[in-house]
Amino acid sequence: MTSIDQLRDIIENEIGKSFPPTAHHRLYDPIAYLMGLGGKRLRPIFCLLSAEMFGAQANKALPAAMAVEIFHNFSLIHDDIMDDAPMRRGQSTVHEKWNVAQGILSGDAALVLAYNQLMTLPEEHRWHALQGFNKMALEVCEGQQLDMDFEIREDVRVEDYLEMIRLKTSVLLATSLKTGALIGGASPLDCALIYDFGINLGLSFQLRDDYLDTFGDERIGKQIGGDILADKKTYLLIRSNEKAGKEEAAVLNAYIGSTGQSAADKVHQVRSVMQKLKVDEDAEALSKKYYTEAMDMLEKVGVPDARKVQIKSVSRSLLGRDR
Amino acid sequence: MTSIDQLRDIIENEIGKSFPPTAHHRLYDPIAYLMGLGGKRLRPIFCLLSAEMFGAQANKALPAAMAVEIFHNFSLIHDDIMDDAPMRRGQSTVHEKWNVAQGILSGDAALVLAYNQLMTLPEEHRWHALQGFNKMALEVCEGQQLDMDFEIREDVRVEDYLEMIRLKTSVLLATSLKTGALIGGASPLDCALIYDFGINLGLSFQLRDDYLDTFGDERIGKQIGGDILADKKTYLLIRSNEKAGKEEAAVLNAYIGSTGQSAADKVHQVRSVMQKLKVDEDAEALSKKYYTEAMDMLEKVGVPDARKVQIKSVSRSLLGRDR
Repeated sequence: MTSIDQLRDIIENEIGKSFPPTAHHRLYDPIAYLMGLGGKRLRPIFCLLSAEMFGAQANKALPAAMAVEIFHNFSLIHDDIMDDAPMRRGQSTVHEKWNVAQGILSGDAALVLAYNQLMTLPEEHRWHALQGFNKMALEVCEGQQLDMDFEIREDVRVEDYLEMIRLKTSVLLATSLKTGALIGGASPLDCALIYDFGINLGLSFQLRDDYLDTFGDERIGKQIGGDILADKKTYLLIRSNEKAGKEEAAVLNAYIGSTGQSAADKVHQVRSVMQKLKVDEDAEALSKKYYTEAMDMLEKVGVPDARKVQIKSVSRSLLGRDR
Repeated sequence: MTSIDQLRDIIENEIGKSFPPTAHHRLYDPIAYLMGLGGKRLRPIFCLLSAEMFGAQANKALPAAMAVEIFHNFSLIHDDIMDDAPMRRGQSTVHEKWNVAQGILSGDAALVLAYNQLMTLPEEHRWHALQGFNKMALEVCEGQQLDMDFEIREDVRVEDYLEMIRLKTSVLLATSLKTGALIGGASPLDCALIYDFGINLGLSFQLRDDYLDTFGDERIGKQIGGDILADKKTYLLIRSNEKAGKEEAAVLNAYIGSTGQSAADKVHQVRSVMQKLKVDEDAEALSKKYYTEAMDMLEKVGVPDARKVQIKSVSRSLLGRDR
């Protein structure tokens, strides 16, 4: 099997070739810009790894890997406009570097380019790949809709939140894996198992991400508290609201949605309530539960264990469980 | 063959069924809203007419007709954001009625829904239909890019403008017709002919539209001069710049890009220069030339004349050449 670094090289090389200068380069430059800024390439790597796990050459799944990576970047371009985000991958977002109209239009073109990639898959697979991709694409839109709705909703429950991150984050990961499996010739059962593996891994990853944003990780040195300062309805906040007694609710009500305090004070106070309610432990436990479920699914996939080593290794490092 | 009114009913009925209430209705409501405001349904009608011309039941091409109509509405939602347009079809645009983020997201979902429609076509046609659709979708984005570029370019030539409207307007019309033909079982030659018919008809239509915006049509009673007031680089203005001598250039330079004059004065002065340079006649002549070319293409399509009657009739009424 190909090493992760080699797979990443294959993907980077393909991305590098994907935007040759044309008469319409102004449309495609913003896509090339964002994709050129890097990122973990997690989705295309998972797609290629999944194809290889079932015995296909990685190259056979390369169009699908490109499709999911281009789709991911399409969604980033548009989400960054919707969220009014100035920075992405340490650089200006597309709409900041160009403008909103350019971000909308180049994002649209990126979505079509993702379909173009799928059209080049081997004939026997492209139809199922397209069906899965289409379903995923709508679900990601539905997830983003829920995320936007949550900003103005006061009654978001943990189960609503989990459904939102399933749609917004997990289905793309799961579809990347399933499409790779499909091209690798996996059985319908194995396709379903690897899809569910991706769903659970995505949930686990997002919950860990929520945890790290607030409780940090001294090994990463990332600035913490961004979600609290943005009043973001993460698992931690929703769960805190559910568990809060009178006293904790009073603190949360005083700080969430308010800008009257210093940033440091707001982060400190909200974090303290969360710790008192042990929602940090809840988040870690729930993330671990989904991780375990993911690994159980992978266990059931009908290929020898040796073929699962790389997917396991990437999953572990993704969740920071390899250190 | 089915009458135009019956075809329109088939389309309206299908649109009416396409957005049932779901848990994610907030995502789909804006699409249903815009599509419910009507419009000429020109593209889906052409798609169905083309299928019938080659002997298929209209219903067989209905998913393709829906795809092009949904795509058209997707492009309207996003273009209206890019153009900052408050009104569409006499009502608020999607981003005005909701907000920009909702317009971006619902537009994205509409694009995916168009692909969903194509996926339900009969197996023997869907691949070619998808290929044509994908090519069209990118070209429409390229056309919109050129249109945006032209706003800040000073060196736009008539041939640049024609290429822009070919991409932005004609290819969707042509693809609607060609996809219908494909489903009707047309030969590759006939598919190419009906595509070129659509390209020429689209160019003819857009040039006539440019003409009517500035020189009006007493039979329509539409307010005229909008393009001039918006300094829009239409055929009329580009051609005027090309033909202008010193005197006319001075007038154009004084009025175009300037807001120092009254609207009525600006429209009157620019119109006078255009008439003096006879670019109104040029526009009408060029529109007629493309119309004649379109009809020549239709003439060559290998089906009996009786089968072309409806496409001809819709084309004539579209260009206002039936009165």
